[in-house]
Amino acid sequence: MEKRIIAVIGGTGDQGFGLVLRFAKAGEQIIIGSRSQSKAEEAAKKAHRILGENVSVVGMDNARAADQANIIIMSVPFAAHIDMIESIQRSIKANTIFIDVVVPLSTAVGGNSTTALGVWEGSVAQQAARILPIKTNVASAFHNVVAESLQDLDNEVDCDVIVCSDSQRTRSLVMDLANVIPGVRAIDGGRLENSRIVEHLTALLIGINIRYKVKHSGMRITGILPKRI
Amino acid sequence: MEKRIIAVIGGTGDQGFGLVLRFAKAGEQIIIGSRSQSKAEEAAKKAHRILGENVSVVGMDNARAADQANIIIMSVPFAAHIDMIESIQRSIKANTIFIDVVVPLSTAVGGNSTTALGVWEGSVAQQAARILPIKTNVASAFHNVVAESLQDLDNEVDCDVIVCSDSQRTRSLVMDLANVIPGVRAIDGGRLENSRIVEHLTALLIGINIRYKVKHSGMRITGILPKRI
Amino acid sequence: MEKRIIAVIGGTGDQGFGLVLRFAKAGEQIIIGSRSQSKAEEAAKKAHRILGENVSVVGMDNARAADQANIIIMSVPFAAHIDMIESIQRSIKANTIFIDVVVPLSTAVGGNSTTALGVWEGSVAQQAARILPIKTNVASAFHNVVAESLQDLDNEVDCDVIVCSDSQRTRSLVMDLANVIPGVRAIDGGRLENSRIVEHLTALLIGINIRYKVKHSGMRITGILPKRI
Amino acid sequence: MEKRIIAVIGGTGDQGFGLVLRFAKAGEQIIIGSRSQSKAEEAAKKAHRILGENVSVVGMDNARAADQANIIIMSVPFAAHIDMIESIQRSIKANTIFIDVVVPLSTAVGGNSTTALGVWEGSVAQQAARILPIKTNVASAFHNVVAESLQDLDNEVDCDVIVCSDSQRTRSLVMDLANVIPGVRAIDGGRLENSRIVEHLTALLIGINIRYKVKHSGMRITGILPKRI
Repeated sequence: MEKRIIAVIGGTGDQGFGLVLRFAKAGEQIIIGSRSQSKAEEAAKKAHRILGENVSVVGMDNARAADQANIIIMSVPFAAHIDMIESIQRSIKANTIFIDVVVPLSTAVGGNSTTALGVWEGSVAQQAARILPIKTNVASAFHNVVAESLQDLDNEVDCDVIVCSDSQRTRSLVMDLANVIPGVRAIDGGRLENSRIVEHLTALLIGINIRYKVKHSGMRITGILPKRI
Repeated sequence: MEKRIIAVIGGTGDQGFGLVLRFAKAGEQIIIGSRSQSKAEEAAKKAHRILGENVSVVGMDNARAADQANIIIMSVPFAAHIDMIESIQRSIKANTIFIDVVVPLSTAVGGNSTTALGVWEGSVAQQAARILPIKTNVASAFHNVVAESLQDLDNEVDCDVIVCSDSQRTRSLVMDLANVIPGVRAIDGGRLENSRIVEHLTALLIGINIRYKVKHSGMRITGILPKRI
Repeated sequence: MEKRIIAVIGGTGDQGFGLVLRFAKAGEQIIIGSRSQSKAEEAAKKAHRILGENVSVVGMDNARAADQANIIIMSVPFAAHIDMIESIQRSIKANTIFIDVVVPLSTAVGGNSTTALGVWEGSVAQQAARILPIKTNVASAFHNVVAESLQDLDNEVDCDVIVCSDSQRTRSLVMDLANVIPGVRAIDGGRLENSRIVEHLTALLIGINIRYKVKHSGMRITGILPKRI
Repeated sequence: MEKRIIAVIGGTGDQGFGLVLRFAKAGEQIIIGSRSQSKAEEAAKKAHRILGENVSVVGMDNARAADQANIIIMSVPFAAHIDMIESIQRSIKANTIFIDVVVPLSTAVGGNSTTALGVWEGSVAQQAARILPIKTNVASAFHNVVAESLQDLDNEVDCDVIVCSDSQRTRSLVMDLANVIPGVRAIDGGRLENSRIVEHLTALLIGINIRYKVKHSGMRITGILPKRI
């Protein structure tokens, strides 16, 4: 694959901005996408304040961000998921990798963050795949890594990232990307349809955060070796 | 049961207002509930313009409407369902009957009206029952009767209304109410959990409307007698 | 389409045999499929006893039945659905139409016939489509017409049949077939994914049978014209 | 709580027997339940061969096992879940703790072990709670610890056990029990309804086993302290 150019749609949100920081710090080329160009630019400035001027982060409106990237990360609330994809889909080039991070929390309809909705297509990621022109390159990942953990740059992330996609090559490329974040270990989650389990796991982790009075519970898969490549 | 006083929460919306018209025309005492008292009052005036001055329709904000009624009909978009219940629940008196009309269409998250979401509790009605203090009196009904059909007062409604509730008495009272609408036949749908099937059926009927280029497909149960009491 | 040759896999079961009787009586060419050829032949004899010798019904083991037909109707318990498809799929010719009749009742795991399971693929029909080689010709239909009603040849069936398929041509051909049964009206149910709603509706109808002490409740779609072609 | 007496219904199966071995080795008093008393007794003998004569393991038919125990662990295939509960429920004493281990794998209907069915009640554990007389003491646990790992007595189990129950006291007692297995850390999974997420996670782990060519992947929750009591 050529040099990665990563657009984080919803990159001004908590989890999106956390991914921006981690990827930029690791030397990736990042575009923050937002509905408003100025908000995107502000977030890019904030990233520079945190990480210094040497990192590559710029801000654009979502459509331009999608157009410039070869990897798109979708990080918006579930209620905005379809609208956001429809607003950028004509800007997505062939062969772009699309990584869905969205979790169908019941908060989308005013409910708790500890329960989830059932998506007609099976998972949010499959909902994306249904709409997108680039079906085989759709992946899902990063659902179980909370914003607090991503933004806490002084500490490694203590969480595996399960990557699902119907394309083994896409899975492999997204796993490579996930592994650039210190502490993250990418796990091959198999087909995109498995994303429903990974997505719902986030609701369980949020409940664990509440019961254990912590901010960033995560999860590790055990029993597979090597522990980290 | 004492004289019915029916609050239609969301009574300014298409389906809610349709129910207002049908029930008021049948001689029921109706309160239109809305977030804004003035909108509720406007809708009440509109009902009087359509039905004449002899019908009993007034407008109030939702909380007052809930407080004054002994039957509450919840007719709001799915995305507003939980918030709306929480906003009125302290106004609901003991023994009030709560009838949920809400369908978990995917439109709640920007999707099509021909598909539906899976609700964590099983159905929208069970979601309501979980929040409400008056659990045994929660029912669901009217999902499959579209606004166009309700508002078309020149014609009978050509649709059965399946009524679900865990309380047989509540089911019976709601079936009595449904049967006051000309053309409606109330069907005993059994426990509240069955509401999930009835709710999803609406998405199918909307698809049939689209494919058949009609506005108010509905459904009848066959094979049960008497056809109508 | 050439002359229809219809294999009813599971044609010795209650609903399957009901379809056999109705289609044979209407002049269709029928093959009853069963795990055991002798059981299939017995059922064919029984059909002849009921309908006379002029109808075209023969019995074969499932694989041969599938091989000889250009329309396959799958009518087995949900627990046997995948195994049965796998056992016949190499016998299915290109362009065969596959009609799934199976409902995911909770009885498959020892539960009630009034509740249903959620199928990973969304519906039983989509589960079939995933396995079958002939994806575009997969349809689902007849879920809501009970065995009792089909086998009661003295009376018309009083039920619409909702037909789902991702292929409009397949939908159209299956609707033509459904309409040969007196009293049945075929309804265009749209894409195969909608089958999940139709399948679950059967559980609701079974509950209505129990509550109303009847044997063959069904359903009609209203508001679409012409009522019957 | 008095001295634990644990009946493992389905204790002759792979995962059930694994739990028998681990608990017996930890000094718990175990009854292996099986449909056939002689099979149960054989399994008890096998446990003694493996663990020596000092452990407390006996075999009984399921109903007697349930009757003698104050903790029942239900470890049967999903397709047998309801029947098994119904067969023992009159033997269950008040205050018994019921721990459901069952996962609704699609294998119950002939499908893959890497996908799962949607249970009408939300989860297998809620299905149990619906049937059982001892509702408040129903918990679910051990779904994510595979048989291979439990039976491999030379190694600690490398997996957290998420425990769900609507009763905090039950959760706490089951967590105490889980923690007797070396390597297991019990996690408070909150209400019983959350069990659906934990149950489905097993299907994901089975897929990981296949893709990574390992036999006992498991999972750990990170970010909560103390790591292990």
